[in-house]
Amino acid sequence: MSDRYATFARSGSGRALVRRLGLPDPPRLRRYRPGDPLVPGPVLLDAAPNGRMRAPVAILLGGAGVEVRDPLMAVANPLTTPTDPAAPASPDPAAPTSAESEATAAAGPETTVAIAPAEPGTDQVPRNAALIFDATGIIDSTGLRPLYDFFHAHARTLQPSGRVIVLGSPPEVCASPREATAQRALEGLTRSIGKEFGRGTTAQLVYVTPGAEYAIESTLRFLLSGRSAYVSGQVIRVGWQPADQPYVDWDRPLAGRIALVTGAAQGIGAAIARVLARDGAHVVALDVPPVGDTLAEVANSIRGTALQLDLTAANAPTRLANHFAGRHGRVDIVVHNAGITRDKTIARMDPAWWDSVLEVNLSSQERINDVLLARDLIPTGGRLIGVSSIAGIAGNRGQTNYATSKAGVIGLVQSMAPVLVGRGITINAVAPGFIETAMTARMPALLRQAGRRMNSMAQGGRPVDVAETVAWFASPASGGVTGNVVRVCGQSLLGA
Amino acid sequence: MSDRYATFARSGSGRALVRRLGLPDPPRLRRYRPGDPLVPGPVLLDAAPNGRMRAPVAILLGGAGVEVRDPLMAVANPLTTPTDPAAPASPDPAAPTSAESEATAAAGPETTVAIAPAEPGTDQVPRNAALIFDATGIIDSTGLRPLYDFFHAHARTLQPSGRVIVLGSPPEVCASPREATAQRALEGLTRSIGKEFGRGTTAQLVYVTPGAEYAIESTLRFLLSGRSAYVSGQVIRVGWQPADQPYVDWDRPLAGRIALVTGAAQGIGAAIARVLARDGAHVVALDVPPVGDTLAEVANSIRGTALQLDLTAANAPTRLANHFAGRHGRVDIVVHNAGITRDKTIARMDPAWWDSVLEVNLSSQERINDVLLARDLIPTGGRLIGVSSIAGIAGNRGQTNYATSKAGVIGLVQSMAPVLVGRGITINAVAPGFIETAMTARMPALLRQAGRRMNSMAQGGRPVDVAETVAWFASPASGGVTGNVVRVCGQSLLGA
Repeated sequence: MSDRYATFARSGSGRALVRRLGLPDPPRLRRYRPGDPLVPGPVLLDAAPNGRMRAPVAILLGGAGVEVRDPLMAVANPLTTPTDPAAPASPDPAAPTSAESEATAAAGPETTVAIAPAEPGTDQVPRNAALIFDATGIIDSTGLRPLYDFFHAHARTLQPSGRVIVLGSPPEVCASPREATAQRALEGLTRSIGKEFGRGTTAQLVYVTPGAEYAIESTLRFLLSGRSAYVSGQVIRVGWQPADQPYVDWDRPLAGRIALVTGAAQGIGAAIARVLARDGAHVVALDVPPVGDTLAEVANSIRGTALQLDLTAANAPTRLANHFAGRHGRVDIVVHNAGITRDKTIARMDPAWWDSVLEVNLSSQERINDVLLARDLIPTGGRLIGVSSIAGIAGNRGQTNYATSKAGVIGLVQSMAPVLVGRGITINAVAPGFIETAMTARMPALLRQAGRRMNSMAQGGRPVDVAETVAWFASPASGGVTGNVVRVCGQSLLGA
Repeated sequence: MSDRYATFARSGSGRALVRRLGLPDPPRLRRYRPGDPLVPGPVLLDAAPNGRMRAPVAILLGGAGVEVRDPLMAVANPLTTPTDPAAPASPDPAAPTSAESEATAAAGPETTVAIAPAEPGTDQVPRNAALIFDATGIIDSTGLRPLYDFFHAHARTLQPSGRVIVLGSPPEVCASPREATAQRALEGLTRSIGKEFGRGTTAQLVYVTPGAEYAIESTLRFLLSGRSAYVSGQVIRVGWQPADQPYVDWDRPLAGRIALVTGAAQGIGAAIARVLARDGAHVVALDVPPVGDTLAEVANSIRGTALQLDLTAANAPTRLANHFAGRHGRVDIVVHNAGITRDKTIARMDPAWWDSVLEVNLSSQERINDVLLARDLIPTGGRLIGVSSIAGIAGNRGQTNYATSKAGVIGLVQSMAPVLVGRGITINAVAPGFIETAMTARMPALLRQAGRRMNSMAQGGRPVDVAETVAWFASPASGGVTGNVVRVCGQSLLGA
């Protein structure tokens, strides 16, 4: 499961060889460790005129203890200007190029005051850990220029494993086709930045429904933190969330929650169980009887419950529902992680292989959801989380059965999300790309290397990266996050 | 622009080497030539129980002179059984494998009568040119099995450059989440088949709105014919079309239509102009004054009109509108093909490069559409067609400006389609992948080779492939085709 190439490429002699031959140079990704600050440096925030996200973001991040560099706010209130003693009080007239001057000028004459400390070359001040641009004010394609101005001027100020977040309005709710077109265009920008910036930078587009400005806190925190190390090039939609959102302890957001994780004995499932437990949940770890021993180890290590069950059995939904009804009276978080592959071209595939993959990866999950929902075991604030796959998005040779099942998981999320809104329950899915597991370790070497490198991070992800994404969906603060399918793939080149 | 590798790989010695080394083996694609039959062989048609597309497809194809092999119809009316004298009257009991027996049994006991002649090994009868499966009857993921049965049994009966078409219901209009989930799952199947079948096979999923069953004729013909040689792995939506659809001459469907093609002096634009003219349209070929000579050549060769105009000029929309108002009183088909690239990372990009790409590729097109629509120059039956790009879908390093503009084109299509439905005007876009043009010929050799090979056809497409797709959108019979973005990319591996 180790990536020997990455270890080699980061060594002294390896690094030199990697540069000379133009080989992939996988950066060491910043990943979350408990106790870490949200971001390891300041966040530069700017907006196109009339954006509605600037103030909410500044307030949410300020409340989270993040140093926000906002040119506008710096002007409005000089007390919030970065107080680094080494920062020049006014811009060095020699530093900005003519393009940069023009860029800052476009955002208002005073912006140079606060932007200057973040310019490259002035090494006395910390580089930015994140660049956030509020593009919600853009209502026409001719108004897209401020995006260029911002990223042109500040691209080089970003730390390794930096974060780029563009905030927009969902095209489908825009007031005019012109506005919808401009907002849809943002996707081309953020996906390009994700491929361009490198060095572990992630770039996302977050569409925020008007009125849901303050519902983005969990998403903002997830994307800024090391929890989203391997999530890049994604489009995320955040909408209204129920008003009765409870107080959230951001270090243990899942405290008091009951979670079910299927396929929890190993790999990604075990990682999900561990991360949900770390975040405070009581985890019921489920897997099939043959892996009962490893399942018990996982459950014990997180003080959870081990549950041996074959989910494809006719009575499985009822038994599962009975378990939660009897022990906990409810289940807050359901993670349908259990999945199998039975790869073969369809001409050579045994019918049993088709049936079993569809049954385990899709149909059994639908039945379980329906029984849990019918028996009202998933309360308001409940979370359904599926596991799709890049194969479910793009298709894959030899995986007609698997890709069909994983495309179905996307359909499940998209069709159930509107139905569940009224009950205050969200449904989302992760779609892992190349994750370093026992399964990928068995791939042919060349294919494995290609899979690892063909993404913006030039490396495979880890099970924990998928698990952190699941935990973000699971958070009680993510009530506005529903109907999303988020890839955990380091922005893999592969897609549809 | 020639693909020397493909020529070599198809040569006697080349073919042997390609096989021994496991190199890509680009098949020779079946492309349309005037006078060709719609498909070069029979079409095998089957359906899951209760499908609503089986009869319409059989009727439409029968009317087009296509030999339809439908197990159900063969039983219902023995006279329609293939009359090939060499075909066995009953199946060879030794031929089908046990899996195939099971497959055919699932579709009804009598199906072997008609399926048998299509089995591989019975070389007396022609192989199938296309496999069409009507999946509209599937209302639950547990009902997906007939898809396996059909493709498992018949995958090997397909000719080179064969066609796979799966027909479904749009998930967004399905009656239940279960049905929407199953219908969405179809995408994983068709995309996998596209990657699996090879030999120039294309595979598409066509979602047909209930009630629009007979609106699919132009789409069915396009997908079956050699016109769609380089279109694969696509999801296409067909909805209602205005009832006043005129009679269509399928050899010259655009007869009497006035078409505008921008950027028509060379490459893809010139190919679009030629194909629209071939299909009967009077083409106004537009380009900038510096390429006036080549523009005139293109226009003369198709008996069209050459129009020199810089579309980014402030008065361009008005001048264009005046041209059509004065000469033709209208413009039926508007193809916004003009586009430029100015590649550079955003940190190094000149602001003028950002502005010009956004202006040419997106904003000027919006202005032109709006003026033409405001002056009522686009009549009922009008067609707006944009050109997006894989970069607009997936983003690309060094193309923040280009990808933003091309993602905007997608937004334009999606936001304008519902607005234009009431006027009987459609709007769609093509998204070309690697197309062999003067532009791609200038790419670095290694990148060019990778771009060519990383798709299900193992070769680059031709400008005519994009043009044929545009002509399908432009057809008067495509009134139900709107809001689509269709890639012409040979099912490139790259995506989002």
